[in-house]
Amino acid sequence: MKFFDCATAPNPRRVRIFLAEKGVAIPTQQIDLAGGEQFSPSFRAINPRCSVPVLVLDDGTAISDVLAICRYIEDLHPSPALMGTSPKDKAVIAMWERRMEVDGLLAAAEALRNSAPRLKGRALVGPHDYEQIPALAERGRARLLDFYNDLELRLADSPFVAGPEFSVADITAIVAVDFATRIKLPMPDGAKAVRRWYEAMSARPSMSV
Amino acid sequence: MKFFDCATAPNPRRVRIFLAEKGVAIPTQQIDLAGGEQFSPSFRAINPRCSVPVLVLDDGTAISDVLAICRYIEDLHPSPALMGTSPKDKAVIAMWERRMEVDGLLAAAEALRNSAPRLKGRALVGPHDYEQIPALAERGRARLLDFYNDLELRLADSPFVAGPEFSVADITAIVAVDFATRIKLPMPDGAKAVRRWYEAMSARPSMSV
Repeated sequence: MKFFDCATAPNPRRVRIFLAEKGVAIPTQQIDLAGGEQFSPSFRAINPRCSVPVLVLDDGTAISDVLAICRYIEDLHPSPALMGTSPKDKAVIAMWERRMEVDGLLAAAEALRNSAPRLKGRALVGPHDYEQIPALAERGRARLLDFYNDLELRLADSPFVAGPEFSVADITAIVAVDFATRIKLPMPDGAKAVRRWYEAMSARPSMSV
Repeated sequence: MKFFDCATAPNPRRVRIFLAEKGVAIPTQQIDLAGGEQFSPSFRAINPRCSVPVLVLDDGTAISDVLAICRYIEDLHPSPALMGTSPKDKAVIAMWERRMEVDGLLAAAEALRNSAPRLKGRALVGPHDYEQIPALAERGRARLLDFYNDLELRLADSPFVAGPEFSVADITAIVAVDFATRIKLPMPDGAKAVRRWYEAMSARPSMSV
């Protein structure tokens, strides 16, 4: 297997944390997103979506989606389980993971990609070019405030995002919080439960990858 | 179990088709989205996200995400498998399903929700109100053309969206095509492979649910 990564990008970091929690190491190649390497013919041949992360299996199959990669790793290395073991836990974790992605990560991406000068004409990840929409950058920032409020309510009731155990939903949430912080929307001062959770998460060795 | 549905909405239809393919029937309650029933106190108590579909388990756990529901049903009723059986097939299907959702369904939702007068102030599903962004409606329509082009390339090479077998990725794709058609972006005339696939899909009894 080979893992195509970019050390500065939020989505591959989700996989890096997942692998670190599993204690799994995979030969890794960095793709220089800032330099446009994702659009090179050699990388397009691996992933026509022009995105990272990608996990290439030994038979050449390329998996270019964070959760699809995590699911594959979870199947090969079931312990520690990060996506649940019972049907109910699997569904609950999948639901919370999705919420963290849509409300947190996608909102931060909306805010960044529709405003950063270096992403002009590149408002969406993928092979197609779309112009930035300034109102969408603003909406992304508004959504992140709702994300923090909703996460505060959840974490006031639950030690981890998806319930009593650490899971892939926490990984997506912490990557979303760090992404939001990078675009100058850090955790609000009043978000005490989020802060308590964030500090506990930060103590995990996996989070520094 | 109890399934909260809305007969006219694309997302619950994904679950209905999935259940029909499995031959599984679940007691169902319609939620009147047009009448705002998703914002009623009684429905908020079930799903604070104010969205359908929701699957409520016998212990009261509410699963409010299409794929999380599908995963739960797949675990309880593994045959016919719609999400893959080997680790590799599961990952490939998850990847293609996600593409169909992001490129097709979310693009159509972007187009509709940012332009329909009845959705003013409701540009995103969920408990929070966001204003419509006309430029985003236009972008959604542009993205649907890219979706059709990309799907044509894929289906020229593959009998089904995720490979040699029917899967949940086909369900998401057909719901996306029907949604796009409803907002007056039907399959382009030149999309021969998409049309061949669509006709084969339409012959499945599950598709009429």
